[in-house]
Amino acid sequence: MTTTTGAGHRQVRVALLGCGVVGAEVARLLNGNAADLAARTGARLELVGIAVRRPGRDRSAAGVDPALFTTDTAGLVSGALRGPVDVVVEVIGGIEPARTLILAAMAGGASVVTANKALLAEDGATLSAAAEKHQVDLYYEAAVAGAIPLLRPLRESLAGDRVRRVLGIVNGTTNYILTRMDETGAGFADALDEATALGYAEADPSADVDGFDAAAKTAILAGLAFHTRVTAADVHREGIGEVTAADVASAHEMGHVVKLLAVAELAEDGRSVGARVHPAMIPLTHPLAGVREAYNAVFVECESAGQLMFYGRGAGGAPTASAVLGDLVAVARHRVSGGRGPAESTYADLPVHPMGQTTTRYHIRLDVDDRPGVLAAVATVFAGHGVSIQTVRQEERAGQASLVVVTHAARDEALAGTVAGLRQLAVVDEVVSVMRVEGM
Amino acid sequence: MTTTTGAGHRQVRVALLGCGVVGAEVARLLNGNAADLAARTGARLELVGIAVRRPGRDRSAAGVDPALFTTDTAGLVSGALRGPVDVVVEVIGGIEPARTLILAAMAGGASVVTANKALLAEDGATLSAAAEKHQVDLYYEAAVAGAIPLLRPLRESLAGDRVRRVLGIVNGTTNYILTRMDETGAGFADALDEATALGYAEADPSADVDGFDAAAKTAILAGLAFHTRVTAADVHREGIGEVTAADVASAHEMGHVVKLLAVAELAEDGRSVGARVHPAMIPLTHPLAGVREAYNAVFVECESAGQLMFYGRGAGGAPTASAVLGDLVAVARHRVSGGRGPAESTYADLPVHPMGQTTTRYHIRLDVDDRPGVLAAVATVFAGHGVSIQTVRQEERAGQASLVVVTHAARDEALAGTVAGLRQLAVVDEVVSVMRVEGM
Repeated sequence: MTTTTGAGHRQVRVALLGCGVVGAEVARLLNGNAADLAARTGARLELVGIAVRRPGRDRSAAGVDPALFTTDTAGLVSGALRGPVDVVVEVIGGIEPARTLILAAMAGGASVVTANKALLAEDGATLSAAAEKHQVDLYYEAAVAGAIPLLRPLRESLAGDRVRRVLGIVNGTTNYILTRMDETGAGFADALDEATALGYAEADPSADVDGFDAAAKTAILAGLAFHTRVTAADVHREGIGEVTAADVASAHEMGHVVKLLAVAELAEDGRSVGARVHPAMIPLTHPLAGVREAYNAVFVECESAGQLMFYGRGAGGAPTASAVLGDLVAVARHRVSGGRGPAESTYADLPVHPMGQTTTRYHIRLDVDDRPGVLAAVATVFAGHGVSIQTVRQEERAGQASLVVVTHAARDEALAGTVAGLRQLAVVDEVVSVMRVEGM
Repeated sequence: MTTTTGAGHRQVRVALLGCGVVGAEVARLLNGNAADLAARTGARLELVGIAVRRPGRDRSAAGVDPALFTTDTAGLVSGALRGPVDVVVEVIGGIEPARTLILAAMAGGASVVTANKALLAEDGATLSAAAEKHQVDLYYEAAVAGAIPLLRPLRESLAGDRVRRVLGIVNGTTNYILTRMDETGAGFADALDEATALGYAEADPSADVDGFDAAAKTAILAGLAFHTRVTAADVHREGIGEVTAADVASAHEMGHVVKLLAVAELAEDGRSVGARVHPAMIPLTHPLAGVREAYNAVFVECESAGQLMFYGRGAGGAPTASAVLGDLVAVARHRVSGGRGPAESTYADLPVHPMGQTTTRYHIRLDVDDRPGVLAAVATVFAGHGVSIQTVRQEERAGQASLVVVTHAARDEALAGTVAGLRQLAVVDEVVSVMRVEGM
């Protein structure tokens, strides 16, 4: 549907849905970098319209012709309003009306670039099937880890390899909070307050701190890594609201740091996939340990390539717009050459195993009675659940005895059962801290 | 030229040139992962022949049919020996006969996947023009930083952004040597001996330690980042042979570490490109500082995306084979769909400015006379070259006075002139250490 202008330059017609922080930056770059983008694409990227909810708002920063704005989103997508559209860029977010608009765009023959992680993680199958049916591109690099080129490497560069495991820090808000807790010894509430004051956390921080945002990204990563359909509902999710200053201090004592990890992994036998988000202690020597503040990074373990890491900004207008524009150039090139990018591949179709069947390790801190036989009683509980202990450290502080146990790898259900058993034990006053240990 | 087999499965016919460490691993993976590769490609990847120089050698590890081996490389490429070829994978290395074979392959309509950094950095223009002329793909992810997906992100994911600077650790041998010097305080010669003993350095280590390998990779990176043709001869090159234990210790004292850096950068005014390889001190807080042993990493500064880093193994049979196979899957997909990947883009066509015009900072350690007026004399030399001093530290040790100066950013020619001037100065006994400082 590319048109040839009088001067012989091809034109790719782009409709932009949404003009918030990301949308405005996309519009600004399309405008400001037009010559470079045309040289790289082989076509002029022509912004034909920008769908907004509130047309009256001041959007002069985007530097685009005010006549481009419209509230008739459906008309813009269908081509009824501004003529045919080659690519629809969706940066509205949320499930509806984004899904209906994307499906309408594809039905009309347009390719789609989206940053909508929630929609992809909930109903990627529908979008993907529509892209296949209408033979258009569906690209979404910006949906996971913002500016970091990650999905294209997973989908294309590693297509000849076997991914075993993806370990990611994919939420900047929680990483900022945990970094501050680590640096200042603050508790979760104080660190959250600081993040909110600085604009790193939203007024309602639940999507971030409870792990919903990270879970959606984990579903997308797991799907791409293991060629399998994974939805957000498949992802085991624990937020950082219960991480205490004592947990962070305890991690430090053993040369670790606490991070909210997104984990997507192949089972040992290769027959199922695990997908989870939870706080975990990782060793300071792990490349992810140095990822601080609001940065994101994703660590990928492959059979042939070995360990890889991708690091950068996970959010913000300009970084996200960079990812959107990269996709837009790719999709526009396909329009010019007449092809399509590699479609989503879910041929492996593996089941997602429940959290209980995941193999992990626990760090457990107990306040215990200060008398002989306590360690024996505690060790018996571990043994009863088939969990083997890697290290145990006994501490006495102000008349209170503590045990810090780090287990060997075991099934999560056995580890959780062990903790429940310890809570029943008469000699245990309190289970002070329980956290998984990853990245060994 | 894809053929359809009886069962309705398409076939992509692959010729492999070279069966050393990388080639044998490529053959093994093509064989072992055939079903996965077919599902991801949409076609069966059929290895039709492997060109080797010494057919008698034991290659059972690759697990391929011995009948595939041939010494008739030209016949294999032309199709005369085993029938038509869709993709030629070149892992022979070196300039000739690799160039002639690649050109012959493309003239015959085959796409090419190569890991040949030396050839690409010397004569990429010829290869690229041939790919364009014959409308075939030329992919070479494995040529820079081995397994790290880097070229595809630069070429595609960041196609909507503007890269300002690429800072890379792209040679594992030198990074191993510098890591050991940093950890043990050893001098260059001892660390090189250790690297040789462990197989990290070759018997003739010149390509690595003198920076030739890194310079070839820098040329490729600079070309992709700035859409300009850059050859290895354009790259300013200094190796690590003159890095002393004192330099490494001096870096430590100011919270830095010494790395062999590959730098590709756009001039401040955007009108020329710099490309250089030399040892440099970088702050311990920089993400590249933590890249140790034989690992590689490339740090990219973009206008919109901000700071990105790609980290992983830069060499070795399996990691390099992973990159080759990723390219092979991409090229095979294009064969199936009838398209081509994005070709090399050199539209910007910027000149490469000489090293003297590069902006950098110097760390200089001087042994000086221990008497009043020395600092004034030294400072006058800096001022005379228009170089401004950021910090100066005076030390006295065993009757010897030292000055450690770190400059502000200035043109390299002014900094080099300052050092020459200092050497002339009567009060300066010796210029003990001179090293650039990057990554601030």
